[in-house]
Order: sequence, then C-alpha cells, then structure tokens
Amino acid sequence: MVEAALELFRQRGYHATAMSDVIERSGAPRGSTYYYFPGGKRELAREAVALAGDEIEQMMAAAETTPPGDPASVVRRLAEMVAGRLEDSSFQGGCAIATMVLELAPSDEDLSIDFERVFARWRAALVNLLEPSGIAPERAVILADLVMSGFEGAMLLSRAARNSGPLRTTTDALARVIENETPFHDSEEAAPFSGSVGARRSPSLG
Amino acid sequence: MVEAALELFRQRGYHATAMSDVIERSGAPRGSTYYYFPGGKRELAREAVALAGDEIEQMMAAAETTPPGDPASVVRRLAEMVAGRLEDSSFQGGCAIATMVLELAPSDEDLSIDFERVFARWRAALVNLLEPSGIAPERAVILADLVMSGFEGAMLLSRAARNSGPLRTTTDALARVIENETPFHDSEEAAPFSGSVGARRSPSLG
Repeated sequence: MVEAALELFRQRGYHATAMSDVIERSGAPRGSTYYYFPGGKRELAREAVALAGDEIEQMMAAAETTPPGDPASVVRRLAEMVAGRLEDSSFQGGCAIATMVLELAPSDEDLSIDFERVFARWRAALVNLLEPSGIAPERAVILADLVMSGFEGAMLLSRAARNSGPLRTTTDALARVIENETPFHDSEEAAPFSGSVGARRSPSLG
Repeated sequence: MVEAALELFRQRGYHATAMSDVIERSGAPRGSTYYYFPGGKRELAREAVALAGDEIEQMMAAAETTPPGDPASVVRRLAEMVAGRLEDSSFQGGCAIATMVLELAPSDEDLSIDFERVFARWRAALVNLLEPSGIAPERAVILADLVMSGFEGAMLLSRAARNSGPLRTTTDALARVIENETPFHDSEEAAPFSGSVGARRSPSLG
C-alpha cells in the first residue's frame, strides 16, 4: 500500500492521487485500507514520505564506491540511477517527494516536518560521503545542499524537457565541483588513495 | 485573471486551484471568465505559464549589473530577490511553474512544451549573461542548466525547511562556481574591468 502510494505521489503528486487509485495499484482489499490507515490519504502520505527517506539512503548506499572516499564518482553513479529511473518511467518518475513538497509545504505543518526529515537524512548521507575525502565539515554541508538542490532541480527540468539531458549535464557539473575540492582526487577516473595528495585538478589542465 | 492564476498555481499547484479560486482572487466577473477563457482552467494555465516566462526574463533584467559582465553578482542578486519573495510569502511562493511541471509533465504534452519554452527562455537569458564574461558558449549552456537546477531545487528545499537557508547556501555555492570560471573576476566583491585578466580566485586563497 505505502509503496503503491509513494509511486503515485511521485508520478502525479498528492492532489491527483485518490485512495481508490492506491487501492487499485496495490491490490489490497478495500476494507484493510481503512483498518490500517484510518487517517486516510494524509496518513498514507506520511508513511510514504518516511519510506522515501529509506529509499534515498538505500540509493546512496548502492552508489557507494569500493574503496570509499571518491564522492564525485558516487554522485555520477547516483545520477546514472536517477537518469535510468526517469527514462524507464518515460519521465513520470523523479523524486518521490518533490511534487508533494511543492503542493503541501509549508501549509501542512506535519508533512513539512516529514519532508524536512527526508532532506536531513539525505544531507547527512552526503556529508558522510564528502567528509572522508578531506572536505571540511562546514563545506561538506554546503556541498551537500548544492548536490541535493542540483538533483532536485535537474529532475524537474528533465521532466519538462522529456529527456535526461538537463539531469546529465547538471550532475556532471556537480561532480566536477566536488572533484575540484577533493584533495585526493587527481584524475577523471576514480583514483582514491593514489598518494598524490593536494594535486588539485585544474579546469585548464583537464 | 492570468496573474491571479499564476499566483495560485505557484502557491498550491494546478490540481488544488479551482477556477472559482482564480475568479475570487482576480475580482473578475464570472461571466467574462468563460468568455475570455472558453477552455477553462487548462487554457488559463497555458497563459499563466507564458506569463511566468516573461516574469523570469524581467527578474533576470532587474538583477543585471551596471556595467554588465559580472554573472556571479547577477546570480547573487537573483538569489536575494527569490529569497525575499519566499520570505515575504511565508514560503508559499517559489518558482511559478515548478509545481505544475511536477504535476503535469510529461503527461500533458502541450503544457510540457510550454514549460520547456519557459526554461529555454531562462537558459538563453543566462547564456547571454555568462558569455560576455569570457565563458565559452558550450560551457555557458552547462552552467546555465546548473544555475537553473540549483535555483529550482533550492527553492524546493527552502519550502520544505520553511527558511531560506538552503536557497542562500546553494546560490552562494553557484556564484562561487561561476566566479572560479570567470576570467575577469578577481575578488569577493564585484570588480569587473579591473584589469587583472586571468587572475583566477583559488579556493585555498579565498
């Protein structure tokens, strides 16, 4: 039920999704729905938003490199996953909560807190990714916000464009920003622990 | 009418806005509405999206510096305008079309074309801003997409956070990316035509 709801909220948003659509998509019997979600669509939305937070953490973990410490490569892998999802869904599927955020925040206070919690989890995962590569903690928070904003906006532009071009160019630019701030990074390809500490890649030499 | 519709679409999106809300907000007599917009809400939405394109071009022009050629400062001014609008509206007002894009693209083909036209106009205005400062044309297109994505995503994060922090940190990071690629830029403050051609600001010296 919650997965079905999340997918519909992702594709059409909150207002255009009826409980009957969720029931139909999930195959759940109608009676159980009101038993498990007496608060109806809004209660289901709050569960779906929490699930979206789990999903983002799982995607971040799946994009992690071995050995860790190459955040630009992780951003590139994440971009590939998101681009694949957009293309496979004919540009219906982007961020699970973005449509709901723009429809409901800040007027729905509980859901706004839930949205902010999802972004806080994503921000923490990005900071955990950036810090071990030698980026200062306060700078890692700024870069995390830049990465989240860039992904969110680029998914929106790609939906409007009906192609993943804006997503790919934007996320490539984000990866390059991170590369230029990662002390251990010295080539286009992932080369963590290569020993060339401090060899910043200059755009004019790239 | 179109202005009232655009404001409501901006704040709540397409689905949660009824024609009666638009009529009430605009003060227009109900009869004239169906005379001027026989296609109803969807026709009004298409007019509103075109108006959003005009509005973005006007904001870009208002943010332009004198003399021109300092794109990072323009991005900072644009960020101030957007932050002011978000704060003044208690975080109800962000991008005029973002909510509609996520609700309706790509399933509504005509509106998707309209959305893409708005982003194309914004992209062109940004490229016109970036190119005179010495950024190569193909790089200017990439940076334009990065700026648009960054603004769109940061407005979304700021709505969820109910403060303009994410918008301010993200747009500051965007301005710094542009500064680092602008040959004529050599200080934190706007200093176009200062004669120090090629003095790139290094993050380690900033």
